[in-house]
Amino acid sequence: MDAVRPLPDFLVKRYQGWKATTYADNRGWYKRLAEEGQRPRAMVISCCDSRVHVTSIFGADQGEFFIHRNIANLVPPYEPDGDHHGTSAAIEYAVTSLRVGHLIVLGHSGCGGVEGCYQMCEGRAPHLEEKTSFVGRWMDILRPGYERLAAGNEADRMRALEKASVMVSLENLLTFPFVTKAVEDGLLTLHGLWTHIGEGGLETYDPAAGGFVAV
Amino acid sequence: MDAVRPLPDFLVKRYQGWKATTYADNRGWYKRLAEEGQRPRAMVISCCDSRVHVTSIFGADQGEFFIHRNIANLVPPYEPDGDHHGTSAAIEYAVTSLRVGHLIVLGHSGCGGVEGCYQMCEGRAPHLEEKTSFVGRWMDILRPGYERLAAGNEADRMRALEKASVMVSLENLLTFPFVTKAVEDGLLTLHGLWTHIGEGGLETYDPAAGGFVAV
Amino acid sequence: MDAVRPLPDFLVKRYQGWKATTYADNRGWYKRLAEEGQRPRAMVISCCDSRVHVTSIFGADQGEFFIHRNIANLVPPYEPDGDHHGTSAAIEYAVTSLRVGHLIVLGHSGCGGVEGCYQMCEGRAPHLEEKTSFVGRWMDILRPGYERLAAGNEADRMRALEKASVMVSLENLLTFPFVTKAVEDGLLTLHGLWTHIGEGGLETYDPAAGGFVAV
Amino acid sequence: MDAVRPLPDFLVKRYQGWKATTYADNRGWYKRLAEEGQRPRAMVISCCDSRVHVTSIFGADQGEFFIHRNIANLVPPYEPDGDHHGTSAAIEYAVTSLRVGHLIVLGHSGCGGVEGCYQMCEGRAPHLEEKTSFVGRWMDILRPGYERLAAGNEADRMRALEKASVMVSLENLLTFPFVTKAVEDGLLTLHGLWTHIGEGGLETYDPAAGGFVAV
Repeated sequence: MDAVRPLPDFLVKRYQGWKATTYADNRGWYKRLAEEGQRPRAMVISCCDSRVHVTSIFGADQGEFFIHRNIANLVPPYEPDGDHHGTSAAIEYAVTSLRVGHLIVLGHSGCGGVEGCYQMCEGRAPHLEEKTSFVGRWMDILRPGYERLAAGNEADRMRALEKASVMVSLENLLTFPFVTKAVEDGLLTLHGLWTHIGEGGLETYDPAAGGFVAV
Repeated sequence: MDAVRPLPDFLVKRYQGWKATTYADNRGWYKRLAEEGQRPRAMVISCCDSRVHVTSIFGADQGEFFIHRNIANLVPPYEPDGDHHGTSAAIEYAVTSLRVGHLIVLGHSGCGGVEGCYQMCEGRAPHLEEKTSFVGRWMDILRPGYERLAAGNEADRMRALEKASVMVSLENLLTFPFVTKAVEDGLLTLHGLWTHIGEGGLETYDPAAGGFVAV
Repeated sequence: MDAVRPLPDFLVKRYQGWKATTYADNRGWYKRLAEEGQRPRAMVISCCDSRVHVTSIFGADQGEFFIHRNIANLVPPYEPDGDHHGTSAAIEYAVTSLRVGHLIVLGHSGCGGVEGCYQMCEGRAPHLEEKTSFVGRWMDILRPGYERLAAGNEADRMRALEKASVMVSLENLLTFPFVTKAVEDGLLTLHGLWTHIGEGGLETYDPAAGGFVAV
Repeated sequence: MDAVRPLPDFLVKRYQGWKATTYADNRGWYKRLAEEGQRPRAMVISCCDSRVHVTSIFGADQGEFFIHRNIANLVPPYEPDGDHHGTSAAIEYAVTSLRVGHLIVLGHSGCGGVEGCYQMCEGRAPHLEEKTSFVGRWMDILRPGYERLAAGNEADRMRALEKASVMVSLENLLTFPFVTKAVEDGLLTLHGLWTHIGEGGLETYDPAAGGFVAV
């Protein structure tokens, strides 16, 4: 493990600042969270993108959101085949053990994963089609979204595919028996969001409108 | 998609507060991030646990960290078999496309996933051993860590397994050819951290000490 | 160039320490910064005073702040007369080439330049009034701030002049067409700060309060 | 002053962290620095570039260095014409009032100002030649350095011009009577440095070698 190094100084300093302020100001609550365990109100599935700051947008504090982040906020279909499924494991734990009340999928503008998927489906990214490309194989989950895109210019289709990444994930969520059951029992609601990074905008999928509307 | 509902009011209100304050105060920067794309300095792999607040601990703001979160901050071994591998895809994207300089694995106290793994390995959680248990199959990644645990009381062994979840992930990271290459080229350093939620503590793996030491 | 000497030993040693630690721990990031160029989020205009440590106060690391430092953190008015204007050049580069999102003017307690200006305006520092005094001619920029000072004791007036050095600079900033345009386009926000060195205090100009308030 | 906004949250948090840690740990020293005034050992003239971190490289702490930063670390020639000269004012204050023992000019690789000067002198940057270009008029100071460049490929000439920005500044420093006098009195030494950002390298001008040598 010689390749492993101690934490860089700039993060040590920031941590120490947090310890002396935010931690010191909230010590009682953090101790309770540690002793009694977490009880998050919602699970959020968002992209790893550094510009998507779910805790900031929602003013979230320690203990509120169970957060899973992966490339392009994707949920694969239900596949209980005995392999490692990180996303499915996180959803199973949130819904069956933590019993969160909301499951939110959050997409965003300018998603590199979605763009890669678009180029791959258009036949312009052969390296993503190789079996050994983890990004390519992960983005295969979004192919059904690409198939449904309306004709149009590339920018519009790319934007539509970003929102499709939310819808495909919501559809796949409903293939998980424990998700469907919690929804039917009235214990869980699903939500689809898309945020515009540059404009700070937020849209929510509204089934009445049959599409995304500004919040 | 009737199971999908618009965003709940409490989150709408928080978002609107963020838009009118933080967004308004940082609009120029967010626009640039949108136009020029992200350039995060580090990737962090942490647990989904709602009490682990990596952006808070490190005072991270929009654009700084590429964050992947899954149950128990695990990295599976390199397996380019053509299946969906969300964690491996995130690492591939961070290292080969974004070229982050630091890859940080952050474990924590009281991890429910680690506890489940411990019980499963002790033979006390048969439901986690079923093929259909996503959490069980995901936690299989940590079995090598369990095998190496020293004898002792349960609390100590559980704590040791939490730290082992960081070490196993670091070991598995080094099975990815593009990670090893970036490390050898001096472009990437790996870091292992473990945080104590109740005490706000932070430990870093120090190869010179051969274990975790307080930051 | 015989007047030029090699770097003194005490700085050689410190540099070598930095190279073996901070540089070694952040090599990948520094290489990227070198290859891809800087993308600072903010420009800071502060005093040269050795006690004003903007990178320390804000935990700033390589690549974050574009920093201009001059005597008394002054910005002269917009004067495109073809002469050398170092401060104006720095602002032009930050706003039009680097497109920073924030422009921060940071004043401080016990500023020697401000005190010189005060004595000069009171008629007690004839040497600063000479044409050949670079410090005097530079501090002329702050004369409009002196003119506006309320009556009172000297200590209060000097403190008020320190804060006026921030306000005059902010006013002058708004005489630069490219600054005004970036502000109007919502791409740039201006900020005025004053720090108390002995007490470690920080005040920010708040237009709602019409003055400086503690952070 | 409606264009001025309070300090953004991310900097408020970082400041508060510094106050609770670094300030708290050094309170006595900062109070003394405030009461007794600064007594810096050296003046450093460096570029505004966000990647040049003089306090980090030299492990500098509050009170050690009087720092002036402008585009391309340039010193204009001595011109006591009664106009605003920010750089000359800073040098005058450091040498005659603070009586620093070292005056260090620090250049760096990949300097945007130097590159602009190079393109301008090659006739490829007409916008920089306009009278209204503050950056162009500021970089005129480096024209004598361009004139002296040896023939060669562009990358080599650009690198040479970066180092020339240090030499021209040192030459101009010696046109200031108070600098020359302090040097002759044995109270001040001049130093020329150039740092390679990506490699963390540092070179010092060595008159014995007649050029820059690695530290």
